[in-house]
Amino acid sequence: MSFTWSTRIYYQHTDAGGVVFHGAYLNFMEAGRTEMMRSLGFDVADMVRREGLVFVVHRLNLVYRSPARLGDVVEVSTVCRGISGARLQLEQVVRRDDQELVTAEITLVCVNAADFRPTAVPGVIKAAFSNVAVGT
Amino acid sequence: MSFTWSTRIYYQHTDAGGVVFHGAYLNFMEAGRTEMMRSLGFDVADMVRREGLVFVVHRLNLVYRSPARLGDVVEVSTVCRGISGARLQLEQVVRRDDQELVTAEITLVCVNAADFRPTAVPGVIKAAFSNVAVGT
Amino acid sequence: MSFTWSTRIYYQHTDAGGVVFHGAYLNFMEAGRTEMMRSLGFDVADMVRREGLVFVVHRLNLVYRSPARLGDVVEVSTVCRGISGARLQLEQVVRRDDQELVTAEITLVCVNAADFRPTAVPGVIKAAFSNVAVGT
Amino acid sequence: MSFTWSTRIYYQHTDAGGVVFHGAYLNFMEAGRTEMMRSLGFDVADMVRREGLVFVVHRLNLVYRSPARLGDVVEVSTVCRGISGARLQLEQVVRRDDQELVTAEITLVCVNAADFRPTAVPGVIKAAFSNVAVGT
Repeated sequence: MSFTWSTRIYYQHTDAGGVVFHGAYLNFMEAGRTEMMRSLGFDVADMVRREGLVFVVHRLNLVYRSPARLGDVVEVSTVCRGISGARLQLEQVVRRDDQELVTAEITLVCVNAADFRPTAVPGVIKAAFSNVAVGT
Repeated sequence: MSFTWSTRIYYQHTDAGGVVFHGAYLNFMEAGRTEMMRSLGFDVADMVRREGLVFVVHRLNLVYRSPARLGDVVEVSTVCRGISGARLQLEQVVRRDDQELVTAEITLVCVNAADFRPTAVPGVIKAAFSNVAVGT
Repeated sequence: MSFTWSTRIYYQHTDAGGVVFHGAYLNFMEAGRTEMMRSLGFDVADMVRREGLVFVVHRLNLVYRSPARLGDVVEVSTVCRGISGARLQLEQVVRRDDQELVTAEITLVCVNAADFRPTAVPGVIKAAFSNVAVGT
Repeated sequence: MSFTWSTRIYYQHTDAGGVVFHGAYLNFMEAGRTEMMRSLGFDVADMVRREGLVFVVHRLNLVYRSPARLGDVVEVSTVCRGISGARLQLEQVVRRDDQELVTAEITLVCVNAADFRPTAVPGVIKAAFSNVAVGT
């Protein structure tokens, strides 16, 4: 299963090189992850308020293949590749039409918001992902 | 007439005060203006590529009334208050449900992308706005 | 008295119009305010941690006069125009050499971080500003 | 040789998790790379205006080890690990005092600004780096 979220490219995302600033894709991917969580029934704002849990980015391997430009519509797809202990492995791809623009492998760690210490991914989240984590 | 565009609040929009960073509303409003232009048939990316025209912000008067928070859905409404020469007057309001969070009066100036000199708003844009610029 | 803080313009600050994105100046001005506070002996991080106080932007009137570009060095000057109750009035100007690029009038409100309710500006801050708030 | 650039952490860099937003480190690293280039005599703004050359990020491998917080001063160190054809390999580390917060391996590609096609890193840049590319 793959969850997708899309946005148009506005001036705020671009830089003087005429294309999307490389850091802006991290924002698109954060939105994509948040909406994927919501599609599984988990709200990141509720998670931090009610349970004191935050998923933080631990590792991020990005390949920029082709630039997006002002006015483009880009789509972020997010796939879960595994959950183990406090870690959540994701793959995210930013595409324009069928073209891959940026691909990413991301390791998130579930931490206590108070002290940022790792804590096991809650069972209900693990169960929800296990139903959908069967590749693209 | 009023055009609306909405977004959810992600971590990227917030700051350590626990609410949306005051600068992030400018991004929401830029997206709202771009989508309002599109709804009238004008694409800002085409405008700069084909006609060498950009609308730049000249004046911006903002009142921050109440903060948005992580997970909120906010809506930006945009109303045209007048066009004269190179200037376009807009009002924008960011709301959560029916509550006004941020209100803004904005003067845009139409400029040549090459030298940033003001140039009259194209007649087709003026005509398109005149059909909708009758307040909220 | 006027406090100044400066930065170079990097790609991250620019947009596809070839100049600095209008929202980026709010970041420069926030840095300028924070460093002005530090120059008077007040650290905004300590204020929120120890006293639970945050200065939030309530009103912001901006005039964009001329754009900054990639590689420019810009300077933000900050002047206090008055303190009354919970409110702090500032003027900020972003310059490149002697040219004014953006001018701003800003009203900050001192709030409790917990509930964002206004609270009087602490006397020590008021006293520190009163020594320097004599215009440019 | 290692070039360093530093910044204080302002609200604009943080998020509602109470620490620096993971995307903000990319901005710090871009500033660090730009200043490293300047220290070697190359201005990225001049490069694009006069020679039509831009260094774009192609690969980015990041490890987030510990978070920076509001008010911290962080330092970005940049080391060149090699230049080959159009590619420039860098290592960047963001530290607070002696603690490594974020480490990154980055591949930049030199491209023509007009069409984003790769082009060999100019000999003068290669020569300048070869004098300093001897590790930390």
